[in-house]
Amino acid sequence: MSSVSHYLRKHKVTVVGSGNWGCAIAKIIAENTASNPSLFEQDVQMWVFEEKVEIPKDSRHYDPSSPLCQGQQNLTDVINQTHENVKYLPGITLPSNLKANPSIVDAVKDSTILVFNLPHQFIVRTCEQIKGKILPYARGISCIKGVDVNEEGAHLFSETIGNTLGIYCGALSGANIANEVAREKWSESTIGYDTPHLDSKVPAPSESSTADVFEHKDVSGQYSKTKLQPLPNEYPPVNHETLKTLFHRPYFHIRVNSDVAGVSLAGALKNIVALAAGWVDGLGWGDNAKAAIMRVGLLEMVKFGERFFGATIQNRTFTDESAGVADLITSCSSGRNFRCAKLSVQRKQHISEIEKTELNGQSLQGTLTAIEVNRFLKKQGMESDFPLFTACYHILQGTMQPEVIPSYIER
Amino acid sequence: MSSVSHYLRKHKVTVVGSGNWGCAIAKIIAENTASNPSLFEQDVQMWVFEEKVEIPKDSRHYDPSSPLCQGQQNLTDVINQTHENVKYLPGITLPSNLKANPSIVDAVKDSTILVFNLPHQFIVRTCEQIKGKILPYARGISCIKGVDVNEEGAHLFSETIGNTLGIYCGALSGANIANEVAREKWSESTIGYDTPHLDSKVPAPSESSTADVFEHKDVSGQYSKTKLQPLPNEYPPVNHETLKTLFHRPYFHIRVNSDVAGVSLAGALKNIVALAAGWVDGLGWGDNAKAAIMRVGLLEMVKFGERFFGATIQNRTFTDESAGVADLITSCSSGRNFRCAKLSVQRKQHISEIEKTELNGQSLQGTLTAIEVNRFLKKQGMESDFPLFTACYHILQGTMQPEVIPSYIER
Repeated sequence: MSSVSHYLRKHKVTVVGSGNWGCAIAKIIAENTASNPSLFEQDVQMWVFEEKVEIPKDSRHYDPSSPLCQGQQNLTDVINQTHENVKYLPGITLPSNLKANPSIVDAVKDSTILVFNLPHQFIVRTCEQIKGKILPYARGISCIKGVDVNEEGAHLFSETIGNTLGIYCGALSGANIANEVAREKWSESTIGYDTPHLDSKVPAPSESSTADVFEHKDVSGQYSKTKLQPLPNEYPPVNHETLKTLFHRPYFHIRVNSDVAGVSLAGALKNIVALAAGWVDGLGWGDNAKAAIMRVGLLEMVKFGERFFGATIQNRTFTDESAGVADLITSCSSGRNFRCAKLSVQRKQHISEIEKTELNGQSLQGTLTAIEVNRFLKKQGMESDFPLFTACYHILQGTMQPEVIPSYIER
Repeated sequence: MSSVSHYLRKHKVTVVGSGNWGCAIAKIIAENTASNPSLFEQDVQMWVFEEKVEIPKDSRHYDPSSPLCQGQQNLTDVINQTHENVKYLPGITLPSNLKANPSIVDAVKDSTILVFNLPHQFIVRTCEQIKGKILPYARGISCIKGVDVNEEGAHLFSETIGNTLGIYCGALSGANIANEVAREKWSESTIGYDTPHLDSKVPAPSESSTADVFEHKDVSGQYSKTKLQPLPNEYPPVNHETLKTLFHRPYFHIRVNSDVAGVSLAGALKNIVALAAGWVDGLGWGDNAKAAIMRVGLLEMVKFGERFFGATIQNRTFTDESAGVADLITSCSSGRNFRCAKLSVQRKQHISEIEKTELNGQSLQGTLTAIEVNRFLKKQGMESDFPLFTACYHILQGTMQPEVIPSYIER
């Protein structure tokens, strides 16, 4: 990280989304742009879905004499004046170079790096709003966990973003609970970013015509092509080193690899494993059994990646990275899929009942993913190759009891 | 498992050792010899270090009118009459075809498969007692966890056994708490067994003269040669399939690979990682941080295996098997190294103090292994390649605080 840059321009970074995970990531990014002024513009834009908030009386920013505390205020004004998202990440001071912006079009304007961090159901409509209004050579990172699985295959959210906007987009995922990251409790994360040839300054294996086309291959083997615009030479390259500089902090360790699919898939599939770990733990079978479930689950994750996304296994993302084994461990220790599955056995209720009573209207990711993955595996005729995933599906359907898992996965 | 054998002879199996893990494994083996009469002699010998015991009054076998309950009795008599090891595995019924034998020489006589399951400090003297008194073509499995590390390298207990007796010996290890396995709570385990060429019925790469010599290579690259006796053709081969038949149960799932070193090493190295996980957990850093430690630890385990035992990585033992990742998970959840390290941070005491007050005179494996591994790495000039292992050593020495771990392993 030299302080003298030999590039004419710097990267402008925008974070799209401002929930608790969005703010935690934006905080990290703004800290890093401030300490790497040769690479990045200091100010970081954060798009905030505008809403009216009141500063709570127990907030350290509450001052009855301040105009900001007279009734409802714009969330962006509150963030920009108090440097705190009092609604979604209370108690955390955000860097003063992080600028909340209620206009998404204005927030992404002229940005070369776009970081997406919002609930997955908003991805498409958000991207549609900025389509054609971003720099054509911008690059993206999706911090949205999981993948979109249907009968045809698994579609990465990073692909949805990239395809909609016509840009290249990688993914960030890891064993990260937003509030702990925001409090600077040490954790790790993984970025999957398969640097496009035309950005890498290394000649592509076959020259030009293929190098500037980014091909997306989904599970069913279908390709879609996006013509990538090269990043102008005035900018520092967007490569693994630059991304590490942008996301790595002493309390947030980053490893970057090229396995976007693995990083994204792991974040979805581990939720199925967490259900099974919860059921077994609920049965009181002890730590050996829970560890066995996690091991078998990890192998099925690896196999899924191997079978449908060749690059995954080469990068060993599932077994070696935070997005893989570490996130699996965290999810099987304290994640909500694990906890609800465990309660469902202890209370002898279906997990959908537990979901209703325990999650304040939120829904479990694992149950949905288990059903979607099963639908896909069934279509491929591969249910028996993934006995744990398949067992989870049957338990959710009520056609199998958790006690049967060991014999079902025995071979 | 056909009931009609085409072999003239059956394997006789002996378990050397009868503590709680020894009895749990002997129970499994006796169940399997009973259900596979074409491969194995039904009766299983178990060598018991003879001692005098009294049947406790709260035992279901206590009957004041029975001669067995009149004062002190031989432990072997109690086991053979009650089918329970009332001292080391109370409450568990052992199969009636498991025969306790106080004479080690008699117990191992004519046995083709010897299963070693006793505290590691007794290995050498026990093997010396039976040297030359076993079948020269017997095969061994060591259920003894860990390895013997010194400045020169890591020596496998299976090698110590094999070298002392002049036989080939593999290893079994996994996420197995003896009492839970004995209670038939589901778990998994891994057998590492690199079937000698002369047993495999497949021609050796180069014929005869090398095939019947078993070479042990230790970390320092030194070889010792043992002339293996071929198993006579009248016996079923001792290969992965036979071993799985002998050890696999519906509640004890076995996977067999050829990586004896990996299976053994994992059981030792994971204890170092468990110390670090305990320290970080004691600091209250949460599940993300603990998962990060486990991930980094797993990578250093893989690297250690890769660097000093080539075969390990090929077999993916650390990342894929119960002896690897699953045992690591269990040890970092409820193992004693984890618990004592956590308490040492919470109580601001050195771990050796906790060891004294919490373990009833037993000692921690992890602290010893961390020091031994560091001595070895230092001699190789490789401390900086294993920053987590090295940090653990410094914390044990009092020259580093656990809070520094993230910056120490940062790269």
